[in-house]
Amino acid sequence: MALSPAQPSLTGASLAQALTAPRAVALIGASTDPTKTGGRAQRYLARHGFAGAVYPINPNAAEVQGVRAYADLRDVPGPVDHAYILLNAPHVLAAIEACAAARVPVATILAGGFADAGAAGRALQARIQATARAGGVRLIGPNSMGVVDVATRTALTVNAALELERLLPGRLTVLSQSGSLVGTLLSRGQARGIGFRRLISVGNEADLTIGELGQLFVDDADTDAFLLFLETIRGREHLATFANQAHAAGKPLIAFALGRSEAGQKLATSHTGALAGSRAAMAAFLREHGIIEVDLLETLFEMPPLAIGRKPLARAPTAPGPTVSVATTTGGGGAMVVDRLESLGVTVCAPSAGATAHAAARKIALGDSPLIDLTLAGTRADTVDAVIETLVDHAGTDAVVMVVGSSAQFHPQLAVKPLVRFARAAKPVAVFLVPQADASMALLAEAGIAAFRTPEACADGLRALLTWQPPRPATIARPPGLDAAAALLRQAAGPTLDERAAAAVFAALGIPCVASSVLAPTTLDTQPLDVTFPAVAKILSPDLPHKTEVGGVALRLADDAAVRTAARTMLERIGRAHPAARLAGVLVQPMEQGLAEALIGYRLDPQVGPIVTLAAGGTLAEIYRDSAVRLAPTDAATARAMIDEVKGLAPIRGYRGMPDGDLDALAAAITALSRLAHLTERPVAEAEINPLLVRATGMGVVAVDGLVVLAEP
Amino acid sequence: MALSPAQPSLTGASLAQALTAPRAVALIGASTDPTKTGGRAQRYLARHGFAGAVYPINPNAAEVQGVRAYADLRDVPGPVDHAYILLNAPHVLAAIEACAAARVPVATILAGGFADAGAAGRALQARIQATARAGGVRLIGPNSMGVVDVATRTALTVNAALELERLLPGRLTVLSQSGSLVGTLLSRGQARGIGFRRLISVGNEADLTIGELGQLFVDDADTDAFLLFLETIRGREHLATFANQAHAAGKPLIAFALGRSEAGQKLATSHTGALAGSRAAMAAFLREHGIIEVDLLETLFEMPPLAIGRKPLARAPTAPGPTVSVATTTGGGGAMVVDRLESLGVTVCAPSAGATAHAAARKIALGDSPLIDLTLAGTRADTVDAVIETLVDHAGTDAVVMVVGSSAQFHPQLAVKPLVRFARAAKPVAVFLVPQADASMALLAEAGIAAFRTPEACADGLRALLTWQPPRPATIARPPGLDAAAALLRQAAGPTLDERAAAAVFAALGIPCVASSVLAPTTLDTQPLDVTFPAVAKILSPDLPHKTEVGGVALRLADDAAVRTAARTMLERIGRAHPAARLAGVLVQPMEQGLAEALIGYRLDPQVGPIVTLAAGGTLAEIYRDSAVRLAPTDAATARAMIDEVKGLAPIRGYRGMPDGDLDALAAAITALSRLAHLTERPVAEAEINPLLVRATGMGVVAVDGLVVLAEP
Repeated sequence: MALSPAQPSLTGASLAQALTAPRAVALIGASTDPTKTGGRAQRYLARHGFAGAVYPINPNAAEVQGVRAYADLRDVPGPVDHAYILLNAPHVLAAIEACAAARVPVATILAGGFADAGAAGRALQARIQATARAGGVRLIGPNSMGVVDVATRTALTVNAALELERLLPGRLTVLSQSGSLVGTLLSRGQARGIGFRRLISVGNEADLTIGELGQLFVDDADTDAFLLFLETIRGREHLATFANQAHAAGKPLIAFALGRSEAGQKLATSHTGALAGSRAAMAAFLREHGIIEVDLLETLFEMPPLAIGRKPLARAPTAPGPTVSVATTTGGGGAMVVDRLESLGVTVCAPSAGATAHAAARKIALGDSPLIDLTLAGTRADTVDAVIETLVDHAGTDAVVMVVGSSAQFHPQLAVKPLVRFARAAKPVAVFLVPQADASMALLAEAGIAAFRTPEACADGLRALLTWQPPRPATIARPPGLDAAAALLRQAAGPTLDERAAAAVFAALGIPCVASSVLAPTTLDTQPLDVTFPAVAKILSPDLPHKTEVGGVALRLADDAAVRTAARTMLERIGRAHPAARLAGVLVQPMEQGLAEALIGYRLDPQVGPIVTLAAGGTLAEIYRDSAVRLAPTDAATARAMIDEVKGLAPIRGYRGMPDGDLDALAAAITALSRLAHLTERPVAEAEINPLLVRATGMGVVAVDGLVVLAEP
Repeated sequence: MALSPAQPSLTGASLAQALTAPRAVALIGASTDPTKTGGRAQRYLARHGFAGAVYPINPNAAEVQGVRAYADLRDVPGPVDHAYILLNAPHVLAAIEACAAARVPVATILAGGFADAGAAGRALQARIQATARAGGVRLIGPNSMGVVDVATRTALTVNAALELERLLPGRLTVLSQSGSLVGTLLSRGQARGIGFRRLISVGNEADLTIGELGQLFVDDADTDAFLLFLETIRGREHLATFANQAHAAGKPLIAFALGRSEAGQKLATSHTGALAGSRAAMAAFLREHGIIEVDLLETLFEMPPLAIGRKPLARAPTAPGPTVSVATTTGGGGAMVVDRLESLGVTVCAPSAGATAHAAARKIALGDSPLIDLTLAGTRADTVDAVIETLVDHAGTDAVVMVVGSSAQFHPQLAVKPLVRFARAAKPVAVFLVPQADASMALLAEAGIAAFRTPEACADGLRALLTWQPPRPATIARPPGLDAAAALLRQAAGPTLDERAAAAVFAALGIPCVASSVLAPTTLDTQPLDVTFPAVAKILSPDLPHKTEVGGVALRLADDAAVRTAARTMLERIGRAHPAARLAGVLVQPMEQGLAEALIGYRLDPQVGPIVTLAAGGTLAEIYRDSAVRLAPTDAATARAMIDEVKGLAPIRGYRGMPDGDLDALAAAITALSRLAHLTERPVAEAEINPLLVRATGMGVVAVDGLVVLAEP
């Protein structure tokens, strides 16, 4: 088929319009059977009142579901803004060619069997990508359940949730890597009065990613917040840009992400990669780009009113944790929320003196329990109003939770109605409805108040809100003085640097390293030794990174003779056992002492890019999977927060009178290592210092061992 | 008021009848206002069709809500089975006296302000207990929301959930320490087609506890399972008996318990009590008595069909973890369940060869992913039926989960209806409905299939089911040979045994202890020393249990002279600093070596009684709150399971080629310490060995330090 000169690819508002407010859609492969997958989109468009033109493309039918059908896209009488390709994978390429020829600017592809299906599928996806790009066709999918826009009545989807009688309008835009979750959110949200502006199933994101789609709609006057359902992160730079723009626009991004158990599967190796795990890196990416991550599915659509119109709490990374006030009309229901909040690290505070005084002036006793029981004063609308106002204005906490018991079911006027006026209060107000209370749920949704159906989601929503961070700067300036490290990396002979070369890089970054000298194999006995005792001797070879396992480490060597003997023995034994390994000699260092050992690592994560990891050293830290992960490069305040996050470093953080470690020096070392992210000319795939010895306050840190692996060129 | 001779207290079937199938009830303090708390019970009884006599007691009204009222209980014309006392706390005692005089066998007390309200309240509760006992009146409460029996239409409660039009009958009996939760379960359950047999708010359990009430109804032919909402454990022996009887009757007990965050509050001390935490002890109590504990509120009423009619899995305590098969009609929905299951330690298995072959013979490809995607074969009822049957019969897993996507909402016949026949399948089948799907929920509830509304509750329910254990034996026989330990405890001078005396008790229990001798203060220089070097010297005083903190430990003493010098210095310094402390001398021991340090502890928990705790030794184990807790006494297999549970002991369980510890010896030491529970003549409040050194396999363990504290007589 001869293609006419390609149309220019749409961008910006025109693309957004073609995607979600198309004047005409083509359904390529439309089925005459409205119950079949290929027949549903047409039925749903009609059911939900799509006002534009609909062109079914089907070579075997003159009419599809009562609408004139066309054998080929080129037969269609008018311009088409958006084509939904309903054909199986083998026929998709031809359909995209047809879209290009017919100057259809956007095509959404239903079929799976592309990057989701092995090497052949990946190759096929690459072909459709190239064809679409050449033809000026922007793609959603493949493997996309389609696009639903409630305001424009564009139900361009095969998702069976669209069997709904009508779609409830709302101000949330959903971008989902899972197609079926689009229907799930729609049906679950509507059932309790939560409507959506639009929902897009992004599929494999062969062309348009969540980040790009988000940028298209970030200024949409009818969207207050974005909900993301993530299986992975594709196109991290676009996603980061979207997140920055959304933050500037005051529109929260809230994500539910799969992959909790991957980290577990990758346990049991000592390298940074395993300790960090891609899920931890993903969580760091979301957090540091100002994207709220929820843990429970329902929190995703229950919490948005808590964040809409608000900014992340202005709190230093190392400040004490968040606090909330909890009032209740039911002891048991309130206790469930308090219990769960505390177990998630959110402190529930008893009423402050100010709040108590303010309430007392209105003849209300708040009591001194962290759970403020309103039944003490009788569950009355005026009491609820006065108590919530008092807690919002005078409690000194970050948010307020109101737990409503049985009255929520049959008497919303008592304790639910009075909450409505707090939708835009100075502090976020969340509500947990303990009984089944559909009318109260809908009332609160309508008012823009976050209403939670379970104590667990309520606590999860508050935790997510109160740990929400502003996005890190879009770019962090490269500090001066990295040239020496860059030069060392440029000179590296192979992808893996030996311990001495790695230490030189760390030192160039500004990390104190243990003094060391090398005994060459040929001058073992004659070379002068400049080391203090006791000393340690380690085999030096780029081919043997796991020195202990090959018997390449000798500790506690008391004097010169002991060092030379150990070195000779080591070289001979390892030379026999590993004849192919290059043995540069034996590294001799003084045995250093510290209060604690830390592991700091740097890695290029395949999804989120450069990350830095901190863990306590030793076997137990590995067993407990106790590490902190951040995007790299990072700053000193963030590094300090990482230190606070690692439980295994508690002994050097002022634990039971034990001496404090030099945490500033540790933070400086983390920051310095993270600067590898600036060195993009010869990028580092992985670097690790293990152990980094942490000495007492003011005494610094010292890197004792480490490795650097360059990325494949 | 002169009491007539007391009636005999009711027990057994008569008590059950008076409680939940009363022929006549008295409402003491009935209000003429049906919307007030005191007026509700009468209204609810009428609303739900209670057929017995209702006698409102109100001295100020001739008639209450259209029913003849009585000024006093003794004016009532007929016998009363059950009185509901609706008066405030100060008037309750007189009401109970009136019940005794009128020979009312059961009274339920609404008012709070008793044991829930400080010392004065506790005293008042003790008085009503004594009065009731003397008068032959059994009590529910105080602080009870009442009793609801759906079959007998006894809505004897003030819980506003009873505003419901009608009560759905069911086969679950609820016993709740929270009154409001009774209403919560009723309203939430009914909304999805889950009915109840009866619900009792037990309040403060001043008389009838959950355990006693359970025993009353354990043989009820109309109850299939019991749901417990727990804030604490009162009357542990009755609860244990109830649990044993329920197990014998094949009726699962399922509990939701508060208190997750208490352990957190108690962090930061090194003693067993803090490490164990009362919540961990409570969890151990539930687990070892065969009570299923769920983590999420909704799981409590969603999971019963998984357990009804089944026994706990027959699995050795140390066997590999549970496995499930997961089939789905939606990738995203299924992935959420798999992700959560794996993160809870439940392994999701790809289809076995047998299952694959069985399905292939029916022309169904199961694929090789742990998530079996039925859309590969098209979501059809016959496919769903064949796949679930295959997984139940041939997958070799412990349970099967079916995840149903959008079809559940509008087309239950496709993938929900076919599940109904698996309600009594050979293996438990659970269903997660991804969209809002009320009709499918009700259909499954009606069929007796566990249907979960969230992926988190689905995973929680399966975890709870698959870690369900049979009850431990009601009594564990006292092994021979504990007489020596008992004798030592009898001879103890004070409540705290010094280290040497404690070691003697441990040795008598059969735990190897380090050899030690005592240098007396008066013969420091002359007394012969029988110890191998290097040695350790420790101050010996019942008044100084924290030896290190007072400078009372000297390590690595190389020879005889070093020991005597250290001992003299220690005695002089501590004698000056702690003049009141009794100094028995200095304990001298060889420095022992082991592969790892463990802490084993024994404690009388105030709620659940004797418990035994295992943790790894050292600061990190404490920081990570990493311990295993069981009821004491325990057996070797359970002790072995405790060892597997403590992450910090991984290095001696065959980790990365590190040498194995003598785990059998460690298990024997745990078992031995737990036998303190048999020594009830002079009971031990707390005992701890820290550290217990664990040597390599076959080399045993050795207790190096420890303490014993006797219970207050």
